[in-house]
Amino acid sequence: MSAEIDPTAITEESLRRIARREATLHAWAFLDEDLARRNAEESPPGPLAGVTVGVKDIFDTADQPTEYGSPIYAGHRPRADAAAVALLRAAGAVIIGKTVTAELAWSTPGTTTNPHRSSHTPGGSSSGSAAAVAAGSIELALGTQTAGSVIRPASFCGVYGLKPTFGLIPTAGVKPGAPSLDTVGILCSDLDVLDRARAVLSHRTLRPVHRPLTFGLLRTEMWEDAAADCKEVLERVAGLLEAAEVPMPGALVGLADASQLIQNYEGALSLSWERLTHNDLLSEGLRERLESGDATSQDSYDAVARRVLAARTDDSIESLFGGVDVLVTPAVVGEAPEGLGSTGDPKFCRLWTALGLPALSVPGSVGATGLPIGVQLVARPYAEDVLVAAGRRLSSHLV
Amino acid sequence: MSAEIDPTAITEESLRRIARREATLHAWAFLDEDLARRNAEESPPGPLAGVTVGVKDIFDTADQPTEYGSPIYAGHRPRADAAAVALLRAAGAVIIGKTVTAELAWSTPGTTTNPHRSSHTPGGSSSGSAAAVAAGSIELALGTQTAGSVIRPASFCGVYGLKPTFGLIPTAGVKPGAPSLDTVGILCSDLDVLDRARAVLSHRTLRPVHRPLTFGLLRTEMWEDAAADCKEVLERVAGLLEAAEVPMPGALVGLADASQLIQNYEGALSLSWERLTHNDLLSEGLRERLESGDATSQDSYDAVARRVLAARTDDSIESLFGGVDVLVTPAVVGEAPEGLGSTGDPKFCRLWTALGLPALSVPGSVGATGLPIGVQLVARPYAEDVLVAAGRRLSSHLV
Repeated sequence: MSAEIDPTAITEESLRRIARREATLHAWAFLDEDLARRNAEESPPGPLAGVTVGVKDIFDTADQPTEYGSPIYAGHRPRADAAAVALLRAAGAVIIGKTVTAELAWSTPGTTTNPHRSSHTPGGSSSGSAAAVAAGSIELALGTQTAGSVIRPASFCGVYGLKPTFGLIPTAGVKPGAPSLDTVGILCSDLDVLDRARAVLSHRTLRPVHRPLTFGLLRTEMWEDAAADCKEVLERVAGLLEAAEVPMPGALVGLADASQLIQNYEGALSLSWERLTHNDLLSEGLRERLESGDATSQDSYDAVARRVLAARTDDSIESLFGGVDVLVTPAVVGEAPEGLGSTGDPKFCRLWTALGLPALSVPGSVGATGLPIGVQLVARPYAEDVLVAAGRRLSSHLV
Repeated sequence: MSAEIDPTAITEESLRRIARREATLHAWAFLDEDLARRNAEESPPGPLAGVTVGVKDIFDTADQPTEYGSPIYAGHRPRADAAAVALLRAAGAVIIGKTVTAELAWSTPGTTTNPHRSSHTPGGSSSGSAAAVAAGSIELALGTQTAGSVIRPASFCGVYGLKPTFGLIPTAGVKPGAPSLDTVGILCSDLDVLDRARAVLSHRTLRPVHRPLTFGLLRTEMWEDAAADCKEVLERVAGLLEAAEVPMPGALVGLADASQLIQNYEGALSLSWERLTHNDLLSEGLRERLESGDATSQDSYDAVARRVLAARTDDSIESLFGGVDVLVTPAVVGEAPEGLGSTGDPKFCRLWTALGLPALSVPGSVGATGLPIGVQLVARPYAEDVLVAAGRRLSSHLV
């Protein structure tokens, strides 16, 4: 925006920062420094000029390999950029490289470590995206969420994570997982940049919200599954935001859990080619999940799909918000767990993915051992402006 | 299914039939006879053994080019098969080649002609799929529908066309148009084969319906836009099926028309890469539609998207069916129009695509000049078994 922005210098600094951390962080699936420099040189002016970007390796890129976190796609070179990548480039952003994703954006982890403590998971499946932003190597990254793949790594790594309204950002050129849940999201160290990127990625204008916002604390039926430090963070934040407690509508109890069935059932179909031609190259964990999708009866799927449809209606959403603008709710069970064998539990994200509501993980809180714990804010459909305003308000308390 | 099935002999006959018609029909975007023969030799036993298949060139195929009906993708070779293609192959079907699609599955026609009268459109965007099945060159073809791209060409060419419940058949590996509408469908000359393919493509078991079915004639608010011969066909069929007239729910009036806005808005985002890098290679017609998507306000989109969501709920669907099992409603305005510059009007298909309801075009009727006119049957979500049973019942009257 300013004449002082120098994408080339910003990119050099990004590459230096990556080099310092990558041996431990393993955030990058593909990084060609010369290509990143060329991308900087060729980047046009625009609302994202000078913004360095990591692209989760589940998005197609025409100028670099796209392996979807799977050996099945070793060396794969797509013909085109994913729509989201093309929109970022055209807005001036500099694509630095491709970030590590869990296998096919499911749950078998890649090699990425948590930048705050390398023995802990960064979360997933947008693992490299969250870790690279948190390490300060890049400003923004693309992610996707089918269960909790944006909000959870954002929380574990201590960055902003936006899972917008279902369908807001185009999924064209993103490897499908479960199409009725798959949502493109953004990880970012700066809420203003995140907001500009969100507008660019959805052809929307920013409409800043200046009116006072009202908040409600929604514990959900899984509250007792949250760790003590996570509960404390939520209750502290609820106090800062003067959030009254709002009840969990009975019709939504259990929907988070039930939506797993949708993910597995649709995933089993979406990954047909991989399963029929390269089943031996899928991880055992993924094979098991897809087989559980096969074993799901069509009647069970149809019933849950209908339940989700009913839960997404205006009446259902209004009964959930109970008059407040924004819900405050756990993003995760607690701090990033130790070990790299699991990306952690997405249980506190599933409901919002199923409902298609915009959700933002706000950093600035820590758990008992000093690792980040994000706070999840949730707004009504297409109310990203309200959600970001709420995120600013919360951040102003936490910094 | 029988030991007598000889995929190689069936494929040779298919290739002979193609050769006889292709100079006029122009149904094929890619056809390599030796590859088709190899596909026959390698086809496994299965529920679709010996079924010859044309794949709309909007589906990725690993063994042949996929150009999406656009010069932007000249010579493009995908890494993988679309999920639907992989499922058909594994069930024993023989992939013969790729059929012509309108540009990027929108409305700018390819070169295909109507097999019944070559000066008339075959409909689109699944133009080659419908024409090749109608010409008897192949038994089954894959199509997609975002407005009326399966039902309309099926009607114009006189074949069965199934647009199933939204999300039933996986879209992985299909070029996205408008993701909240895009639906994979099937064109076929035989309803039993269509039904088996539908089950294969959705991991579902066939559950034949033997109980008597009740029918309702739904004229919709656009009835007066249908040609006189089309109205006569519908009224005759309604008589044969003892279909009582059912009223159009007020809440659904105008939704067919409004859903165009969703298509254009989402399409403008989905095709970002093509527009930003190869806009000059898009047809003027498509550019205009996408620009109308750009010009749509986000508030208008959000309002229509919410209206669609409300219309898809159980209560809304029940008020539409009014107690009957299957609706009988126009598939098209009339016979295939003369000329190859347009694929015809999808207005009678849009509502069913927006509602996500399974719809079947049933051949066997003709218009004033002797060209086919399909009759559209519509069932409740996931009630494909009921829909196919209804199609059998109607066909038994028409043959």
